[in-house]
Amino acid sequence: MSPQKNKEAIVRLIEEVWNNGNFQIADQFISLQYTIRHDPGDPWEGQTIDLATYKDRVKRSRDVLPDQKFYIEDLVAEDNKVAVSWRFTGTQTGDLPELPATHRPVNISGLTIYYFSNDKIIGHWQVLDKLSLLGQLGVQIGKDKVN
Amino acid sequence: MSPQKNKEAIVRLIEEVWNNGNFQIADQFISLQYTIRHDPGDPWEGQTIDLATYKDRVKRSRDVLPDQKFYIEDLVAEDNKVAVSWRFTGTQTGDLPELPATHRPVNISGLTIYYFSNDKIIGHWQVLDKLSLLGQLGVQIGKDKVN
Repeated sequence: MSPQKNKEAIVRLIEEVWNNGNFQIADQFISLQYTIRHDPGDPWEGQTIDLATYKDRVKRSRDVLPDQKFYIEDLVAEDNKVAVSWRFTGTQTGDLPELPATHRPVNISGLTIYYFSNDKIIGHWQVLDKLSLLGQLGVQIGKDKVN
Repeated sequence: MSPQKNKEAIVRLIEEVWNNGNFQIADQFISLQYTIRHDPGDPWEGQTIDLATYKDRVKRSRDVLPDQKFYIEDLVAEDNKVAVSWRFTGTQTGDLPELPATHRPVNISGLTIYYFSNDKIIGHWQVLDKLSLLGQLGVQIGKDKVN
């Protein structure tokens, strides 16, 4: 696909799969093998997952923050890559491993580079602002202890 | 400049100015007005700064971590934009506002989109993994308190 078509695929993946929870159409965009190359703190970091696991990943995120929305800030596409800057909002009404539902709203940001091969997305390299996320969820950062 | 030339400028900016501390040649790359559009936790976030302030920004970072090195992971360029994924290493031998020198090594990552106009870089939109940074510097995250 052209860089322009790749951008369109990313916009639809984010809007329809991640924002609207229409998991089934992930098949249109995601390769049978998808590698989470780099995503600090992500449960699947470094793993190559199949489509069912990809959908489970979306579902688990939406179970924790059912009203989640990604807002695309900008897109940069070249060859088989699309970089996306984004903002994210949601309310934590579900439990996280060490953080039961807080019912707090969050508003954070991140950047992702998606990689394509044979018209499908084969993985990503991502960093998101988890420090702000934890702070907004009421997790204490520092103050008590340094070193 | 072409996207390819823009990439070359970013590689040189990171290598020569940020990694080697050759502040003076920042003039070759950085516009007279540079806007830090988005960079959570950065002291200049949202501000438009002049060249002297840009150099001060590099200097302050290098004062805290004199051995700092950015390693470019990937570059994605289109039109007047260059997205960069990167890793960063350094040792905190200088003081941060609420964190005196820990002498600890850090190894984190981030992503940046740089914006160009008239052959110069006019600003960036960036997210870096500050949660890992604070954790590696020994700042306590959560555990004690939730909600």
